[in-house]
Formats: sequence, structure tokens, C-alpha cells
Amino acid sequence: MQPEHAINSGAGSQGPAHASSGPIAIVAGSGRLPIQLIEHLERTGQDYRVLAFRGFAEPELRRKAHAHVDLLDLKTIMSTLDGWKPRAVSLVGAVRRPGFTALLGAYSALRNMQEVKEVITRGDDQVLRGAVMLIEERGHRVVGAHELAPDLVASRDLHGSLEPNEDDRQAITVGLDLLASLSAFDIGQGAVIARNHVLAIEGPEGTDRMLVRVAGFRQSWFGLRRRKEGGVLIKAAKQGQDLRVDMPTIGPRTIAEAAKAGLSGIAIGAGSTFVLEQEETLRTADRLGLFLAAVDLPWMEKARG
Amino acid sequence: MQPEHAINSGAGSQGPAHASSGPIAIVAGSGRLPIQLIEHLERTGQDYRVLAFRGFAEPELRRKAHAHVDLLDLKTIMSTLDGWKPRAVSLVGAVRRPGFTALLGAYSALRNMQEVKEVITRGDDQVLRGAVMLIEERGHRVVGAHELAPDLVASRDLHGSLEPNEDDRQAITVGLDLLASLSAFDIGQGAVIARNHVLAIEGPEGTDRMLVRVAGFRQSWFGLRRRKEGGVLIKAAKQGQDLRVDMPTIGPRTIAEAAKAGLSGIAIGAGSTFVLEQEETLRTADRLGLFLAAVDLPWMEKARG
Repeated sequence: MQPEHAINSGAGSQGPAHASSGPIAIVAGSGRLPIQLIEHLERTGQDYRVLAFRGFAEPELRRKAHAHVDLLDLKTIMSTLDGWKPRAVSLVGAVRRPGFTALLGAYSALRNMQEVKEVITRGDDQVLRGAVMLIEERGHRVVGAHELAPDLVASRDLHGSLEPNEDDRQAITVGLDLLASLSAFDIGQGAVIARNHVLAIEGPEGTDRMLVRVAGFRQSWFGLRRRKEGGVLIKAAKQGQDLRVDMPTIGPRTIAEAAKAGLSGIAIGAGSTFVLEQEETLRTADRLGLFLAAVDLPWMEKARG
Repeated sequence: MQPEHAINSGAGSQGPAHASSGPIAIVAGSGRLPIQLIEHLERTGQDYRVLAFRGFAEPELRRKAHAHVDLLDLKTIMSTLDGWKPRAVSLVGAVRRPGFTALLGAYSALRNMQEVKEVITRGDDQVLRGAVMLIEERGHRVVGAHELAPDLVASRDLHGSLEPNEDDRQAITVGLDLLASLSAFDIGQGAVIARNHVLAIEGPEGTDRMLVRVAGFRQSWFGLRRRKEGGVLIKAAKQGQDLRVDMPTIGPRTIAEAAKAGLSGIAIGAGSTFVLEQEETLRTADRLGLFLAAVDLPWMEKARG
């Protein structure tokens, strides 16, 4: 999947007036996460409604959706949610950040211009937090997919058959330092490090494209594609990040792209990273010879193990 | 040009035994910088010798070269320099970082394995500093191209016809903060920021490819190529960086790529950035509607203005 800006949200927030017997409302973008959340809800016998973003939701999700809406049509989003009287709302899956002007127009239908402009210019996190805020102000309870389906989150003891070696452990240490240093900035949650050499920092292009970039310059440097030069992909929620928005996500495709980039493994933040198709992800890592390790993030209060 | 790792070096170092009447030795990689340095030396009537790296030096430079050598053939590099008895040596132009194993083999011809491995694993800066160290240990005086030809360096008052607007100034502030935060890491010297939103951080792929990346995801976000969404390319030497190695470089091509990425301008560190073909660079900025501004870097002791 393409985890540009996963919009998973939730935690905290005061319970509003809506019926606690209503369905769970899933506001869904692209990728496998919304589908896996729905599967979990079905397995556990929970009632749900899906509001799918046009142009983002996958076909399988579109077939299950109860309503379809344009990303920037906030009025329809709000009236649909109001109509469902959900006991909780969860924003799940990825969307691409719209252009500034488009966002400005959409939000200003509901808020005053200056306030909206300030939220938007504060960056991605702020835009998503702004969306959560708007939904909460309507009296809905916003919860994260990780609260609805904790099974989807990397536990502390998640690991494949292979272990990081000494170079990899150094890379993980450098990577965590790097991400901590970047946490004050509106930038991605991933980086590729080989020993102490930073090969890439994730921007709005997302993890998969960052890995393609690393594969590309390794190809041009060494003349051979897929030569295993080592290096580690680190994905972790930012220091001070509100996990209600934009939780890091990996899956089998992440493993495959990391292998193509010649990496020796992947380290993810324990308790704060979604692992899609967990069994298949671990199998892929083993098969392609990469380690997969969940690491405690020094800046996270409590990683659920 | 492709400023992967500009190897310009110099400053300081005790004058060794070699004749102060000898030529200036230019050890040259790719790009326009070595050529412009040579033009400067010719204009000012200084004697020089060029040692060109095979596979990197441009045709124009190859024709002027007095010797050609493989990047990793340190023994020939050293014996050639020794034979020229230069009054100064300057490492100029870009080279791609060779693979770890290749580097290890090359350096270990001269040094003990453990020491070499430690230098190499410390990252790009360290590899280049290691090269300078080796040359200095042979008794040569290593100087930077910026010392031989200060005209090539951005002065504090360098600017085109356009000025950064308020959003651009915010982006410059955020970009300088970001680069300062990154200075402890072995990573590039450039970033693209729109307001406070970090669109890209430069890795080993270099500035031009970073700009192509930004152009790419802007295209996919907005459906229109070249739509001017704003944003600023910041290029600056790192905090604590030894300017004898890897000084940032821009030129007309940088401007063109920035324009394609929809940026509104470029900010460079005053006194610590090479500007290739300065007049053409400024003309290109004006023509494509981008500002070009030299900014004082808070972490630099003295920017020459």
C-alpha cells in the first residue's frame, strides 16, 4: 500500500450525546488497512458503516461502503456521519494531501479563513488533526483503528527468523536519533540508514517510493541490481506525535521494496506501527532474507507489548 | 552538474617542504567546477596541473588534463602528485561514493585495515576528509577551490531580481533549523520546504534528483506539471562542516530543476556555496521567475560578503 498519510485517529475525547449503541463509522482512504479493520469488526461481530473517499478506496472496500464522498466535501462527510449516529468514528487508510488552495476552499466552508489558513500551513499532522477536531466538535467520538483492532499493531515481541547484525543495530540507533531530531519538523516517519550513513529520509512521497529511490541509486552506484549492500529501513511514529493521526504502517509490499533496495532489514516502533497481513509480512521477510524487528521508541510513554 | 559529493578542500594545514614555486595541482571529478577553476587560474596567470578521474571528468576537462587516474588508485594519485611537486593541491568536482568494499580495498593499500574501516564507516565527510589527510601526510598543502578562486563563491549580496515573499522567508527559517538539526548526521546539505512543510531532504542522490522527486509528486498531486505551488530549495554547508570537503554547489541547471519542481526560489549559504556560471545562473533565475538569495548561516563563523 501507499501510506502517504494514514488517517487513523482516535484515543481520548469526551463521549458525546450520540447513541452508544450506534455503529462504528469508518471514514476510509486507500490501502489495505480499512479492509483489515472491517474484517476485524466482522469477526468480532461489531456493527459498522463505511464512508469511502472517492478515488482512494480500493475496489474491495468500495463494494462494502455504505456511502461514497469526495475527500474535500466536508459538508457531506459531516451530514453522513451525523445521520449514522455512530458510537465512534475512525479515520483509516491513506489520502494524498490536497493542494493548498483546494484545502483552503474546503475548510473555509466550515471555519473562518484565518483560522483555517493557520491550521493548513502548520503541516500534514495539523491538517489531519484539524479534521479530527472538526468531527469531534460535531459531538462524535473519534477513535483510532489501533484501539478498535489492537491485533493490527506491532507488538514488542514481533520478529521474523533473522536478527539484525552489529551494523544493523548501529543503523537502528542512528535512525532513532535521526527521527527524534526530525520530530519537530513536518516530515515523514521513515529513513534508510546503512551503518551511520543516512541513505534517505522519507518525505511526502511515502515509504515505498523512498525505497525505490534507494534501489535506484544503489543500482547506479554498483552496476548490479539487488546486490545486498545492507542498510535498515526505520519506521516510527514521531516524538510527541498524536497517534490519533498518521500511524506508521508496513506490510508485505514494504518488505519486498526493502529487499529490492538491498536492505538487510526493517525496524518498526513497537506498539505504534500497523503491520498489515502480519503473517504474510513475516513470511515475506523470512523468504527474502530480511530481519523484521519491533523496537521500543525511547520517546514513547508506553509501547504495548 | 551532479553535485553528489563535491570534493573541494583546502584551508589551514602547515606548509610542507615542496617548492612554493610549483604548480597548483587540481585533482578533478565531474561537473563544471573544475573547469571554472582552471579558467580562473588561466585568467590570473597561475601555473597548474590537472589529475582527472576516469569516468568522472567532463570531456573539456579531460582535454586539459595532464594525467588520468582511477578514483581508487591511490598509489598512482600519490606518486603523480609527488612528481609534480605542487605548491598546493585542490580536490574539485564531484565523485560518486564508491562501494564499501572497493573503498576498503583502495585505502587499505596505504593504511591498516581497522583504521581504514573506521574512517569509511563514519560516512561521506569522513571518507573525503580521509583523502585530504592522506595527501597532507605526504607533505602537500591542500587548499579549497574557494580559496583559489573566491569569485566562484556566493557573496552575501548575491541576489536576482526577485525577492522571497513571506511564505518563502518562513520556509528559509524552517530549512535552516532543519539543516542545523541534521548536521550531526551524515546526510546531504539540501532540503525543499514549502512554508513549514518539508517536501524533501537531500540524500546521496544529490540536489538535482531531489528536485526531480519534488516535481514528480507535485505532478501526481495536482495533475498539472509545472504548476507553481511555491516552496524553497535551501542549500547550505552543515553546522561544524569542514569547508575543505564537500562545499555545496549550484548552477543554471539547479535553477531549471527548481523551476520544474514548481518552487518559488533558492536560498544558499553566503560565503560557503559555489555558484557556477554566476551571471547565467542569475539570468536563469530571473527568466524562470525564481528568487535566488544568499543567506547568512547562523552556525558559520564568518560569511565572506
